[in-house]
Amino acid sequence: MPSTTKPGSRVITLTTDFGGGSPYVAAMKGVILSINPHATLVDITHDIPPQDIRQGAVALADASVRFPADSIHVAVVDPGVGTQRNVVYARFGQQHFIAPDNGLLDRLAAQQPPDKIVTLTNPKYWLPDVSTTFHGRDMMAPVAAHLSLGTDPDDLGTPQDKLIRLDWPEVRIVPGEITGSVESIDSFGNLITDIDQSVLSDCPKDESVRVCCDEHETYGIFQTYGDQPEMTLIALIGSSGKLELAIVNESAKIMLGVSPGAPVMVSW
Amino acid sequence: MPSTTKPGSRVITLTTDFGGGSPYVAAMKGVILSINPHATLVDITHDIPPQDIRQGAVALADASVRFPADSIHVAVVDPGVGTQRNVVYARFGQQHFIAPDNGLLDRLAAQQPPDKIVTLTNPKYWLPDVSTTFHGRDMMAPVAAHLSLGTDPDDLGTPQDKLIRLDWPEVRIVPGEITGSVESIDSFGNLITDIDQSVLSDCPKDESVRVCCDEHETYGIFQTYGDQPEMTLIALIGSSGKLELAIVNESAKIMLGVSPGAPVMVSW
Amino acid sequence: MPSTTKPGSRVITLTTDFGGGSPYVAAMKGVILSINPHATLVDITHDIPPQDIRQGAVALADASVRFPADSIHVAVVDPGVGTQRNVVYARFGQQHFIAPDNGLLDRLAAQQPPDKIVTLTNPKYWLPDVSTTFHGRDMMAPVAAHLSLGTDPDDLGTPQDKLIRLDWPEVRIVPGEITGSVESIDSFGNLITDIDQSVLSDCPKDESVRVCCDEHETYGIFQTYGDQPEMTLIALIGSSGKLELAIVNESAKIMLGVSPGAPVMVSW
Repeated sequence: MPSTTKPGSRVITLTTDFGGGSPYVAAMKGVILSINPHATLVDITHDIPPQDIRQGAVALADASVRFPADSIHVAVVDPGVGTQRNVVYARFGQQHFIAPDNGLLDRLAAQQPPDKIVTLTNPKYWLPDVSTTFHGRDMMAPVAAHLSLGTDPDDLGTPQDKLIRLDWPEVRIVPGEITGSVESIDSFGNLITDIDQSVLSDCPKDESVRVCCDEHETYGIFQTYGDQPEMTLIALIGSSGKLELAIVNESAKIMLGVSPGAPVMVSW
Repeated sequence: MPSTTKPGSRVITLTTDFGGGSPYVAAMKGVILSINPHATLVDITHDIPPQDIRQGAVALADASVRFPADSIHVAVVDPGVGTQRNVVYARFGQQHFIAPDNGLLDRLAAQQPPDKIVTLTNPKYWLPDVSTTFHGRDMMAPVAAHLSLGTDPDDLGTPQDKLIRLDWPEVRIVPGEITGSVESIDSFGNLITDIDQSVLSDCPKDESVRVCCDEHETYGIFQTYGDQPEMTLIALIGSSGKLELAIVNESAKIMLGVSPGAPVMVSW
Repeated sequence: MPSTTKPGSRVITLTTDFGGGSPYVAAMKGVILSINPHATLVDITHDIPPQDIRQGAVALADASVRFPADSIHVAVVDPGVGTQRNVVYARFGQQHFIAPDNGLLDRLAAQQPPDKIVTLTNPKYWLPDVSTTFHGRDMMAPVAAHLSLGTDPDDLGTPQDKLIRLDWPEVRIVPGEITGSVESIDSFGNLITDIDQSVLSDCPKDESVRVCCDEHETYGIFQTYGDQPEMTLIALIGSSGKLELAIVNESAKIMLGVSPGAPVMVSW
């Protein structure tokens, strides 16, 4: 019996590199609530490393898929703020996004083409004074608030054909060997790779499969962390459906000294 | 004139060891709002040290008591995710809890027996695909959302008799001496002990009472931090009704090098 | 078409030095929602350095201005909790504040005189048991919740004439030279000064203007970070309208080793 949501109470999420305790986040929320006091605000994360568009793109793609249809996701990792880069509205399926067009939407675009892209050019939906250094507050937050009240995306500006794309490391698949890399590291220090479970179907289900990351290796791909004793390096399929390397009840990041980008190889 | 709350707008709190900036928290919120867009979401804390069930149990018991009747508290400190441990619904008075049955509810259970326990076995209220590594998102979040819409706890699974208990260090009371330990440390570095003010009633109200923690000592139990000069070690009754050791306007944790578990003695 | 807000759904913001993951924040939210389940809670920041009233005052003044009319801002940086300091309600324009009277409202007061000040003396709006160490939870949170339900500020206590003021470093302006200091540092490590753009109008618009901070110097005041190459020290007008020093795509705080209070000079 889920209730029908009134337009005004739509979810607006925020993903930034401002840091968890930043009053800049609060400023964006204040702007949104000044326009739509009934918006439901949710933080995805504000702990994207400063200016790290790739980590922002991964977090946004992973988390946004869990939100109700018609949620509006505002993402601000914006080293080019105030320069020539566009700020865009993009719709992917039933999820709406407002972000600088700098690759921040590229993990979404890699999964499915956007259904609509609009360059934000209509100042009617911005704050009266737009700073040169904080378009998250002055353009993106008010546009998201107006969208949540029912503004037509076509009114936000002019149609745009394509989003800026990024190059991502490629996952290479040959018989008996899959090569990828560490894409992100979670707060437990677990290493999340770019190797999706869908490409692991040919892989044997026993401990003859070898998984390496840098110079570290482990055998077998398990179901969950508790399948191996504490302090053991374990490979498993993580909660986002990707191959993950973890040290049971410890931080693989700290114990192995691994960073995003480290090579990962599965072989059998 | 507090308004009556509609069932849908019930409070759902989250307590995890995911870290404050974790998109895993956002995924749980997205799942909840997809089922009940009117839920009122509140973070208790996501900064429980990884897999530290005891610190989670303390934070949950201390904070949950402040919430409105019929709040639903979801707690995820879950090193055994995907193994044989149960996930449970438990009601303590007018507060409802969803957690792995691993001791995370044990500080609550130490205060009062649970009024109801249900093992979550009914997949009707879970996400269609339950991962082996993230039951917080796939089972606990959707169950909490359904509860907030009025689902009967009895429909969630099968009755369970008892919760898993933990051993906690014992507070020892003999005439003229009470011995306990540091139970948690707050963000100011104040050392919060397991010695409740109720056992301190025989204690003299002057500076003849000696309070020791490790090799550090102070005299008297004061009302508030400002009762002593800056940089002084002071003992007082903290805001949760427990004996607390603090260094005025500094961090006792850092200055004394004390960790949870350190022995504390009150003598007179 | 912004909807009219019902009194109950008014915004209540929280600004504290409790740390982002502190269950103390959750306790305040629980108290508020127990009185007004429809309050819209927003965190401004909980990462004010412990007991740093000045940083709290700056964050509160900068962020509160972005919130809807009739928002209620609760601020708790309160080293004197339980001592003789007052706790006050203050109204500045259409924004309402609840805070200890210790200078935490002084950046607001420096911009405009308060329209009303009330000392909180009426225990009717507090929790039944007020601790000596946590007035944020026991007095300020419940008072804010009652205000959000329509309680008249005059009922909260007795009128008060003035707020406690702080001394702030002075910005000195002489022909061809402005001297100020670093007032705060944001999460990117950008150095935000106390020199407002309004006093920079006489300053040449080219690279003949010299900006120094400690022993570091740069020329010109730019529009945005992207106006200079990566790793360059740049001066610009930041999003709060103040002179800011940044290192493009890096942390000026870390690379220059600068702290709040460092001298800043603009000369031409």
